[in-house]
Amino acid sequence: MHDEDGMGDSDPFERLGAAAAERAAAGLTRRLRPRPPQEAPDAVDLAGNDYLGFSRHPEVAEAAAAAARRWGAGATGSRLVTGDTLLHRELEEELADFSGAEAALVFSSGYTANLGVVTALADGSTALVCDRHNHASLIDAARLAKARGAQVLLFDHADSATAEAALAGSAREHRILLSDTVFSVDGDLTDIAALARACAEDGAALVVDDAHGLGVVGEGGAGALSAAGLRGAPGTAAAVTLSKALGAQGGAVLGPRPLIRHLVETARTFIFDTGLAPPAAGAALAALRLLRAEPERPRRLRSLARRISAELTSAGLAATAPDAAVVSVLADSREEAVAWAGACRAAGVDVGCFRPPSVPDGRSRLRLTVRADLTDAQVDRALETVVGTRPRGSG
Amino acid sequence: MHDEDGMGDSDPFERLGAAAAERAAAGLTRRLRPRPPQEAPDAVDLAGNDYLGFSRHPEVAEAAAAAARRWGAGATGSRLVTGDTLLHRELEEELADFSGAEAALVFSSGYTANLGVVTALADGSTALVCDRHNHASLIDAARLAKARGAQVLLFDHADSATAEAALAGSAREHRILLSDTVFSVDGDLTDIAALARACAEDGAALVVDDAHGLGVVGEGGAGALSAAGLRGAPGTAAAVTLSKALGAQGGAVLGPRPLIRHLVETARTFIFDTGLAPPAAGAALAALRLLRAEPERPRRLRSLARRISAELTSAGLAATAPDAAVVSVLADSREEAVAWAGACRAAGVDVGCFRPPSVPDGRSRLRLTVRADLTDAQVDRALETVVGTRPRGSG
Ligand SMILES: Cc1ncc(COP(=O)(O)O)c(C=O)c1O
Ligand SMILES: Cc1ncc(COP(=O)(O)O)c(C=O)c1O
Repeated sequence: MHDEDGMGDSDPFERLGAAAAERAAAGLTRRLRPRPPQEAPDAVDLAGNDYLGFSRHPEVAEAAAAAARRWGAGATGSRLVTGDTLLHRELEEELADFSGAEAALVFSSGYTANLGVVTALADGSTALVCDRHNHASLIDAARLAKARGAQVLLFDHADSATAEAALAGSAREHRILLSDTVFSVDGDLTDIAALARACAEDGAALVVDDAHGLGVVGEGGAGALSAAGLRGAPGTAAAVTLSKALGAQGGAVLGPRPLIRHLVETARTFIFDTGLAPPAAGAALAALRLLRAEPERPRRLRSLARRISAELTSAGLAATAPDAAVVSVLADSREEAVAWAGACRAAGVDVGCFRPPSVPDGRSRLRLTVRADLTDAQVDRALETVVGTRPRGSG
Repeated sequence: MHDEDGMGDSDPFERLGAAAAERAAAGLTRRLRPRPPQEAPDAVDLAGNDYLGFSRHPEVAEAAAAAARRWGAGATGSRLVTGDTLLHRELEEELADFSGAEAALVFSSGYTANLGVVTALADGSTALVCDRHNHASLIDAARLAKARGAQVLLFDHADSATAEAALAGSAREHRILLSDTVFSVDGDLTDIAALARACAEDGAALVVDDAHGLGVVGEGGAGALSAAGLRGAPGTAAAVTLSKALGAQGGAVLGPRPLIRHLVETARTFIFDTGLAPPAAGAALAALRLLRAEPERPRRLRSLARRISAELTSAGLAATAPDAAVVSVLADSREEAVAWAGACRAAGVDVGCFRPPSVPDGRSRLRLTVRADLTDAQVDRALETVVGTRPRGSG
């Protein structure tokens, strides 16, 4: 049926070369740059998401090692078959207790946690009401739910009034509002309390992605629901990741017991996926215990982020005022952002660089992620470098 | 717009309790049962996917521990930001070399590897031609691709003639055939060579999910493409997992260099996901090196699987003849399958139990997964137990 030119002995992957050349011409080439070992950093890291420094904490590494020896290097199967251990249970109990949720369920990543919770909840009777700037994993989750018949409605970023209108406008029997808490590009914390009020009025559930909130916002880092006064509130749930503030890998859903049971029995990315590897579960648990033992870490982290933002602003740069641990600094153009990030890196300060199509508004920026364990000298060097390498005319 | 009864102060998750009660009434309740530590097993494990026993191998555990110390307990960011290390590179080079592919790219799981490769390749110009029994992750991948405009066509399980007809019948410019290699329920190895011929004639790409083939089939365990004489063949690629025969966690895509570059630059589950945790990468690399140093392990594994199947068959049970390391044994009903698996477990032999809706044909069975490191005594005990606990009238 198809044209002759798609047939015969031509290589079906050859066309990918042309697509790569087009990306290169548009300045969209992405390249992997391996980082050095944690004990020999070659730059101040203001690009990763290891907000509390736990990925490089010796007790966390030792917990990963101990878990590998005791429980195995891998889970060996789905949690429902041979992949469940008492270590996973302990981690789930600690996560639930810490966040104030009734129960928790650990997934292999934050990405699969988002896919799992959304697709398990949304079918043809459901409307998903989504912030336009939600993370890729929540967008993919909504796409999968749509394939099962769910309705997907978008609302303007962080705008609870349009969210409310979308909820009210849906004729579906069940409605779920989906939003990131701390949005990953600019680090702004959305008004969860307002979203929760809209949901409560409508009878809708509120499911948030707290990937950049757990360990960072709320009392002792308990997360964005806690920060909004919604600790353990009925009708709410959070998906979190173990790969950012907890320094490991994995994800979890925190919520009411009936939701967690529903996920165990129906979430595709839980049932048909190998359980989280014990070393990651052990590391996340150790990190969580360190966090609980030193609950002032998140406050220090947030105040450091505010200080960095304030100093960049007073140097004349267009830095966001951070709600969490992400500071973004606008550049005038994509080319300038790329050159600026490159100059920082050359000067030994690793910063993120977001440019189209990864930014929702099409405006390029540097993205600085702050770490609680940065020394004063590192902070000074970072500030000096970002300001000193600014493109002419920026800010 | 929606009915009053969906509104007000009712708990939107309450309905999940009713759904759980329905599942319970239908005998579909699933429960987590934590397994004991690897050093103190309480049963012979014929249920997990640790085919070569590497998840419990001391050198693999030590490699996980060493990686946690050197590279961190977590990757700290996307591979494109701060999550890439020389350890990931080494693993990718070793995987490519072992499987005969030009290059490899490691993902956080086999699930996200499948989602990533399929959605990065398939857009509105593409038809995905899929075996009806493909794994849940490939099905979700096809659903996501469909949301981007791809056409999805199904062919009868392991039937290359209907696959060929589907390829020929599609008017889309690009066509990709997607199939598991070893199907996870019955463990049958599909005829990859026939599928590859159909693809070559059509100009289509062949992408296989070799989750249960890597480390199990092919010379030295090099995988199903190798076993089919397609080592490094143009137009072919494999997604694999690091969580089964390699005993760790993670996934990878193995294929031509332009494909791998395309994934680095466009695969959503690569770009927007934290990199694989170093302990998992280190464990998988150590396992792969052990496998290459003892290439007779996969052959021993397959012959053990054939022996177990033969002995069950001569005892009058309806066991499949295994192509890989999975033996499935039919039961007469769902209730019998569940009771049989429970009796095995009570007698100290852990077996899988597949029943509707997890089985594509609606027929319940036990699923035995064989491990290369089972002792003769364990094999004898397993055989005695499975035969001795059979439901009356089965086989
Ligand atoms: C907002 C958000 N949600 C989800 C994820 C996915 O989490 P993970 O990397 O643990 O899969 C990320 C980042 O990776 C994220 O930034
Ligand atoms: C055929 C198949 N593909 C993919 C996967 C997913 O791999 P992972 O568990 O590493 O995510 C699995 C099992 O989990 C599988 O059986």
